[in-house]
Amino acid sequence: MAAITIFGKGNMGSAIGDVFKQGGNQVAFIDSKDPVENLGDIVVLAVPYNAALSIAKANKDALAGKVVVDISNPLNFETWDSLEVSADSSAAAQLAGLLPDSKVIKAFNTTFAGTLMSRKVSDKEQTTVMAAGDDDAAKQQLADALTDSGVAFVNAGSLKRARELESFGFLQMTLAASEQIGWTGGFAVLK
Amino acid sequence: MAAITIFGKGNMGSAIGDVFKQGGNQVAFIDSKDPVENLGDIVVLAVPYNAALSIAKANKDALAGKVVVDISNPLNFETWDSLEVSADSSAAAQLAGLLPDSKVIKAFNTTFAGTLMSRKVSDKEQTTVMAAGDDDAAKQQLADALTDSGVAFVNAGSLKRARELESFGFLQMTLAASEQIGWTGGFAVLK
Repeated sequence: MAAITIFGKGNMGSAIGDVFKQGGNQVAFIDSKDPVENLGDIVVLAVPYNAALSIAKANKDALAGKVVVDISNPLNFETWDSLEVSADSSAAAQLAGLLPDSKVIKAFNTTFAGTLMSRKVSDKEQTTVMAAGDDDAAKQQLADALTDSGVAFVNAGSLKRARELESFGFLQMTLAASEQIGWTGGFAVLK
Repeated sequence: MAAITIFGKGNMGSAIGDVFKQGGNQVAFIDSKDPVENLGDIVVLAVPYNAALSIAKANKDALAGKVVVDISNPLNFETWDSLEVSADSSAAAQLAGLLPDSKVIKAFNTTFAGTLMSRKVSDKEQTTVMAAGDDDAAKQQLADALTDSGVAFVNAGSLKRARELESFGFLQMTLAASEQIGWTGGFAVLK
């Protein structure tokens, strides 16, 4: 059982909260008007990339020591043709730079909200959360919190792999936007 | 029906040949000792990235006008921690630079050989070939050649998306190498 704080009450925040609740965790939500206090052990930034940067800048001390989960897909939503981070970096690496005392993990950016809510990709295959981060204990904490949640967990490696996870999320979104997959479908991770 | 020439007779070349044969195409193989002649309309470079570069450099004129399919995953196989192309480029973009008169497509780098042979990911979901390239007619030629092949086809967009396909292939390979998925499993594309 972990105490989880989720910034953001949108589709993704709600779906992630639902998953963690099934996992037996204590879940609290914070939105932009709420005071940042009593944060859980795991803090999920379920907000767009630029908002996540703002939260990180404003709350560096409050987030110190926490597992901070970045779920963002930092697309340029005007062109849908690139990411807003430089090619040799990632949103998660940018956040980790702002939060040197936090344990930053990239996760949940490869799972559409619909596949988190249903725990299935295309109503067929179990949804899998892929996580990248440099702190193995922090990734284990996240894996433990998801054990009974209905979604599977895969360790995608060090925080450097956030770049590949963000490419993966970007590609998946472009396929959904071009209607080659649905927003309840996408990429399933099969053993 | 297309005439297809495949450079390379390894696991990937053989599997790709099997798929195209089922699609009703005429398939010929070339290995490094064979003369480069009588190339088909679609030429698949089913060789490692550095070998693909060498083939492109040596055969620019023979490949002019052809649909050239780059299947490579340009991993640094010493570290398994990065790609051998710069972060803002891709293997496919490098090949396209060497072959200005060819229609270069990135494809087959996201499908393990085993999933091409069986046409299934993890014996469950149909294998999907994702293709990126700037020439829509060339991508359609490839899609047509795969119509009855047993694998599905997805248009992943312009050649810029090769970067995301290569990230996708890289991530998939690291998960298999760390035994979190099998080499007959991986990422399935579900509608």
